[in-house]
Amino acid sequence: MSDTLIQPVLAHLDARQPLIAHWLKAFLRIPSVSADPAFAPHMARARDFLCERLRRDGLHNVQLLEGGGEPAVYGEWLGAPGKPTLLIYGHYDVQPADPLELWRTPPFEPTQVGDRLYARGASDVKGSTTVALEVVFAFLATLRSCPVNIKVFIEGEEETGSPTLRALIQRHGALLAADAVLSADGGRASAQVPTINTGARGNAALEVRLRTAAKDLHSGRYGGGVRNALHDMAALLATLHAADGRVAVAGFDDDAAPPTPRQRQDTAAFPYDEAAFFDDVGATSHGEPGYSPRERITLRPALDVNGMWGGYTGAGTKTIIACEASAKLTVRVVQGQDPARVIRAVLAHLRAHCPPGAALEVVAMHDGSPASTLAPDHPLVRAAQAVLRTEDGRDPIHVRLGASVPITSVFKETLGIDTLMFGFNLPDEDVHAPNEFFRIGSIREGVQAWTRLLDALGQYQPAAFRA
Amino acid sequence: MSDTLIQPVLAHLDARQPLIAHWLKAFLRIPSVSADPAFAPHMARARDFLCERLRRDGLHNVQLLEGGGEPAVYGEWLGAPGKPTLLIYGHYDVQPADPLELWRTPPFEPTQVGDRLYARGASDVKGSTTVALEVVFAFLATLRSCPVNIKVFIEGEEETGSPTLRALIQRHGALLAADAVLSADGGRASAQVPTINTGARGNAALEVRLRTAAKDLHSGRYGGGVRNALHDMAALLATLHAADGRVAVAGFDDDAAPPTPRQRQDTAAFPYDEAAFFDDVGATSHGEPGYSPRERITLRPALDVNGMWGGYTGAGTKTIIACEASAKLTVRVVQGQDPARVIRAVLAHLRAHCPPGAALEVVAMHDGSPASTLAPDHPLVRAAQAVLRTEDGRDPIHVRLGASVPITSVFKETLGIDTLMFGFNLPDEDVHAPNEFFRIGSIREGVQAWTRLLDALGQYQPAAFRA
Repeated sequence: MSDTLIQPVLAHLDARQPLIAHWLKAFLRIPSVSADPAFAPHMARARDFLCERLRRDGLHNVQLLEGGGEPAVYGEWLGAPGKPTLLIYGHYDVQPADPLELWRTPPFEPTQVGDRLYARGASDVKGSTTVALEVVFAFLATLRSCPVNIKVFIEGEEETGSPTLRALIQRHGALLAADAVLSADGGRASAQVPTINTGARGNAALEVRLRTAAKDLHSGRYGGGVRNALHDMAALLATLHAADGRVAVAGFDDDAAPPTPRQRQDTAAFPYDEAAFFDDVGATSHGEPGYSPRERITLRPALDVNGMWGGYTGAGTKTIIACEASAKLTVRVVQGQDPARVIRAVLAHLRAHCPPGAALEVVAMHDGSPASTLAPDHPLVRAAQAVLRTEDGRDPIHVRLGASVPITSVFKETLGIDTLMFGFNLPDEDVHAPNEFFRIGSIREGVQAWTRLLDALGQYQPAAFRA
Repeated sequence: MSDTLIQPVLAHLDARQPLIAHWLKAFLRIPSVSADPAFAPHMARARDFLCERLRRDGLHNVQLLEGGGEPAVYGEWLGAPGKPTLLIYGHYDVQPADPLELWRTPPFEPTQVGDRLYARGASDVKGSTTVALEVVFAFLATLRSCPVNIKVFIEGEEETGSPTLRALIQRHGALLAADAVLSADGGRASAQVPTINTGARGNAALEVRLRTAAKDLHSGRYGGGVRNALHDMAALLATLHAADGRVAVAGFDDDAAPPTPRQRQDTAAFPYDEAAFFDDVGATSHGEPGYSPRERITLRPALDVNGMWGGYTGAGTKTIIACEASAKLTVRVVQGQDPARVIRAVLAHLRAHCPPGAALEVVAMHDGSPASTLAPDHPLVRAAQAVLRTEDGRDPIHVRLGASVPITSVFKETLGIDTLMFGFNLPDEDVHAPNEFFRIGSIREGVQAWTRLLDALGQYQPAAFRA
């Protein structure tokens, strides 16, 4: 560690706290929702906003990288020959804000209440992306140099499952070549203890439609005599899980690596207030027997229906028999699992249980990404461990994320490099839900840790990351 | 029968065919959707439109009758002392037009294709309402007199289950006093043979919401560890029916009168092309074992989910675990059944099957109306039978409607009088669905039959209807 060297950087960042929050708010005011084509102009505005900042604060070769979908934002600083090159990953797109009526403040008008900054995308992941960028800018502003070479890569399709990310990286492989990835996405697991993310679940998605007639029918004229798409869809979805919470799809976890003793010990060591975890969101613990609640959401695969609809859903009563019903489903997969195989097992289950007289159609299917894993002795893990020990005084606990950061697998497959998830959001910040927020205090903790992390990574030989 | 007397009326109506169609189209252009408060101004326009016509063509005391909800339109001609007084019932409100994208022509721009006039409300029931009104106007225009006293009563809440109809009739009981009701709602059962409607199923409605958490949760962070409102709602709705189509709610049909031998014979005599009935709408026959398809939809109770929704239903993927799910349900009840008891049995079933950790809330519950029945020797049936025999040459078959015309029960309870359903719509006209239409040819058949019907009813003593 070279604490003397980074002192001016840390001091600069300290002084800049209000400016950093101000810039983050401007970023959050841009409703860069990638899932809905209606927001495309705002996606473009978010890209312009980032490019302008990267250029202004010392990055070179700033440009948009096209892959066939939403372009990514790129910029570089390569003034440290012989030092490792780190690809800094973040994403500028956010989840849709609906249901809008449940927001207490406008989702795209960032609102600070105490230490909390409320806005869609604040925690996922404009806040942590801002933290990473500000550290690079601070090194360049104070030292005219970084301890490592930097390639900034801000994606625009993370919230839609990164459909064209592979194509984009393959097209721009030479530009993106690096020794490792530092991801602003994939946050802290606990506000109480330091943690290092050593992996995440993968995912895959499926949307199906079930049809029982050519048109909606009058429930008086046909009621009792025909199939009802809503009845059939309900019955079909009800077969996916056993009453005890186990997934009832044949072969669903056949390829899932059983949790290792080390993983189960780490999970048990993690300070996890089970009652608080569920009470905070008014939920009830419910899941696969034989595993603790925390094991269920980090070490075991899961299957969730994310949306289900059909028939009349407006005000009042409409006495119809719906001719079609739809459902969106996603799976979370763990180490060892092929997400394509798993989502096809779900589809095969649905087809096998679809009654005669009802037709099941696949509307969309995305194979997503497998789970990711970082070995405990990897230089990224060791560097992060040293940084967090310096910051906190305690040894960080290794944890795995229940959520997916598919980019980790994509970078491994396409560029052959590993990813350290080093985001500073916390797990209670209502990502993907109304009233998402980011803690203002996480900006200060984040920029200090990222400053030390870049410094620590500068001590390694580039080859060490590929060992 | 006094054929000579009514010849000028029939001739007048014959000459007026294009004008009748023209007026009906203007009526259909008014989007009088009662279920959606956004359409309230159009409801008012529809009332004005009717009042103006009633006044212009000879009805007296034309006014709006308030009952706390959408007002009804009233007008009278009481110039036949000693003759029976008939309340002519229709409704000016229509079903919502959605799903709009499935209409081939704009739902509120009536479009004639061959003999078919496409528009929301064409068949249900502005077409048949127009038929009834034009006959009254034609008697007054040609003979300056009607064979019976007339009270026109056009409701505005039929498509929302007539929530304030009882209150409205009770408030205006003296004005509405009559010997019997002729309803333009409740149409013909077949295009091949003449039929008389001797009853209809009743109905009741329930909307429930199921909640499993205080907010939507990220499916990565919580997936596999918490209840999912969509899973629980699917499982709950799946318990309502057995796989063979039988309703699985305890006590659901306890109070249902078993079909009589006469009813089963009538049903068997009805020319019913089972394959065509289902093929026409691309549906599969499915229902309670032990009954023919036609018996299931006319003589047996039914339970249908009319709408089901929760979670993310927009474009793309949103990886959430929904905290709530909703469902709209209706029942159809038969002779002997108390709809309030039946809908409460459904609710009790849902409560009994709701898993711990999920909270079931009643959003709305409407007791609706019981089934209605007209005895085979009732003067209304005898008069209709004579008219249809004259028109067609064959004896009409007695049929029961699967759909509900709750006003029949309401008029019986509040005014103590019986209702003859004498609508001229046909069963294939896609009511409550996209591309609803009415046959232009039904206007001619309808006005002839209604002319003869009013004439035939004028031969009875008023007391005969109360026997």
